[in-house]
Amino acid sequence: MTPPWDLLLLDAALATFEGPRPYGLVERGALAVKDGRIAWTGAADALPGAPTELAARVERLDGALLTPALVDCHTHLVFGGDRAHEFELRLNGAGYEEIARAGGGIVSTVRATREADEEALFAQALPRARALRADGVATLEIKSGYGLEPETERRMLRVARRLGAELGLEVRTSFLGLHALPPEYRDRRDDYVTLVCDGMLPALAAEGLVDAVDAFCEGIGFTRAETRRLFERARGLGLPVKLHAEQLSDLDGAALVAEFGGLSADHLEHLSEPGAAAMARAGTVAVLLPGAFYALRETRLPPVDALRAHGVPIAVATDCNPGTSPLLSLRLAANMACTLFRLTPEEALRGVTANAARALGLDDRGTLAAGRRADLAVWNARHPAELCYWIGGGLLRRSYVAGKPVG
Amino acid sequence: MTPPWDLLLLDAALATFEGPRPYGLVERGALAVKDGRIAWTGAADALPGAPTELAARVERLDGALLTPALVDCHTHLVFGGDRAHEFELRLNGAGYEEIARAGGGIVSTVRATREADEEALFAQALPRARALRADGVATLEIKSGYGLEPETERRMLRVARRLGAELGLEVRTSFLGLHALPPEYRDRRDDYVTLVCDGMLPALAAEGLVDAVDAFCEGIGFTRAETRRLFERARGLGLPVKLHAEQLSDLDGAALVAEFGGLSADHLEHLSEPGAAAMARAGTVAVLLPGAFYALRETRLPPVDALRAHGVPIAVATDCNPGTSPLLSLRLAANMACTLFRLTPEEALRGVTANAARALGLDDRGTLAAGRRADLAVWNARHPAELCYWIGGGLLRRSYVAGKPVG
Ligand SMILES: [Zn+2]
Ligand SMILES: [Zn+2]
Repeated sequence: MTPPWDLLLLDAALATFEGPRPYGLVERGALAVKDGRIAWTGAADALPGAPTELAARVERLDGALLTPALVDCHTHLVFGGDRAHEFELRLNGAGYEEIARAGGGIVSTVRATREADEEALFAQALPRARALRADGVATLEIKSGYGLEPETERRMLRVARRLGAELGLEVRTSFLGLHALPPEYRDRRDDYVTLVCDGMLPALAAEGLVDAVDAFCEGIGFTRAETRRLFERARGLGLPVKLHAEQLSDLDGAALVAEFGGLSADHLEHLSEPGAAAMARAGTVAVLLPGAFYALRETRLPPVDALRAHGVPIAVATDCNPGTSPLLSLRLAANMACTLFRLTPEEALRGVTANAARALGLDDRGTLAAGRRADLAVWNARHPAELCYWIGGGLLRRSYVAGKPVG
Repeated sequence: MTPPWDLLLLDAALATFEGPRPYGLVERGALAVKDGRIAWTGAADALPGAPTELAARVERLDGALLTPALVDCHTHLVFGGDRAHEFELRLNGAGYEEIARAGGGIVSTVRATREADEEALFAQALPRARALRADGVATLEIKSGYGLEPETERRMLRVARRLGAELGLEVRTSFLGLHALPPEYRDRRDDYVTLVCDGMLPALAAEGLVDAVDAFCEGIGFTRAETRRLFERARGLGLPVKLHAEQLSDLDGAALVAEFGGLSADHLEHLSEPGAAAMARAGTVAVLLPGAFYALRETRLPPVDALRAHGVPIAVATDCNPGTSPLLSLRLAANMACTLFRLTPEEALRGVTANAARALGLDDRGTLAAGRRADLAVWNARHPAELCYWIGGGLLRRSYVAGKPVG
């Protein structure tokens, strides 16, 4: 008789993120996979038969920690060039002016991204996506926003999709046309917003390149009114929204994204109490980005206590980008969320699994429960807190996407 | 005719850390190896013949960055257990008392280390040493100091030596008997210092297990007078000294280690100007440990400007240890040295190569020059600043120890 399951993982410490226990921990646990989904999970004692009769393949993990594969829900991973020279100039004492004269800032990334053809963009992004995967990431959000004109925005999103196919990861794309005002529109701000809302967005959405719509709502980015215009257009197209909000100042962007039932508001260092309350009512996830906080040496902490008090789900992401967070490890982002933002390890790990999946609108992953996708990570660790405690190092033993070993 | 060289690396961007140019950079460089040492280095144009006639093996690096292999000059890599649970307790709001009641603090590491036999200690330390190696480290300092009694101190140092042999790294050992007062000597402080100075040190040195002698000179550690007693004993045995100095307060430890012509003074957040001057005169290296600064959320920065002004050589290390710096990447330590301490990328990279070698008293490595050991690292990068700019991720392409590929 053919065993009912494809794969049975035995003798694992399961961090399920289901149920009332911390981390949803199941010691001496077992997990079964069938057709790419989790078929059974629980204490090994409770298995309904002998392992070899239950599954075609049985693997013993010797007490190793098994978690949902990680979800990086906020990255700008596709870009041309890097900003290492700017990093160096700044550390050698160069001021804003000098860096601008040397061609630094986001403008330099826009230029390098526009100049790179699809192959070049893909080749540059590939090792970054590989680095995230080597750290246990199976689902990855990637934004556009360094093209700021139709062809390059399209190219970025196409490269994002190709990265997923090449590496066996699931990539969710966000269109971030309202990332920065491109230099050629300096005196025609409204025209650019119109181009984004009425030109790029519907065209890219029609090509299936847009899973969600994002904007940078900030004094140095776009206004609340401009963001609203974009969100209305997204709603018309049936696309979910998210927002870079309250990073440098409080423009009440969180309430705006909540008003549109948005997936997430991200950064949030300057979030107000009413903003947190609005997010809670709308079920909008708070995505914290400690890599940018670290790299920019910010001192204003996101209001974690207010998020907790209002019951806002908290996610953590790398924000991988060349200017403010050249961070290539989601596990390190979780460590920074603990160390710098004082999240507990359990909050940080829910933040890179269950709540990160929610921030992408994905309800089929992020916890270990029957019926979910078998996106799994096996770690050289025994307790989940270790994943946040160690700084750097390769703790991943192996990972699975939809039940298939990765890499 | 047999070619004169064993290996010729071509088409590399060489960061030699020799000569006046930033990073000692040589674009389109070449480097030759003979009998485990660097035989030639310079611009490829200047090679004294055709590559295939010059070397038995020729490898083209396609413009990749080639640096000296990294040197981690301050670690406590060998220990039993970990402190992830304590990390978690603290983030869940536990105070000092509660953590002490739960068995936390250095005492818990001492207990776990004493309980672990040599095989267990080795097995636990191995993945940590592998993580450092995967990041380009070829030479590694490891301290004792979690035994605080003769047998366990010996076991730690033996494990340190075994790690080097197992992984093909060079391990330099430091005896750190004066790390903490063991609980059983609480009321017999002098007896413990006597045991360390007159019992453990000469015995372990006679077994060839001690390359240098270290102490923790601090209010919560050992006094200046106790440290001096140890240093005099070390001098009698012909062993170089180094010191954990000025981390939490200024006990003028840097001047003490300088008085003994010590290799390095480490931490130094509270170093005084006269302390920096004394180090400069003695040629004592300042070892900065940003991982501990980060993990402890310290705010007092080491006086980098004073170190620069006095011309004190600056090194950077992981301080890999379970309590205050569970850091498994030296490249990440270099990033933290830039981000948190405002070292330039060039200073940080000299700090993990040339100056780190000097902090271990090794003058045969740490730069790329004819005659040095061929300890080399090839990176997925083109400019040295990238090594400090990227946060996390596996940038190492491959490394060589004494001319042999590693791993
Ligand atoms: Zn972002
Ligand atoms: Zn130390």
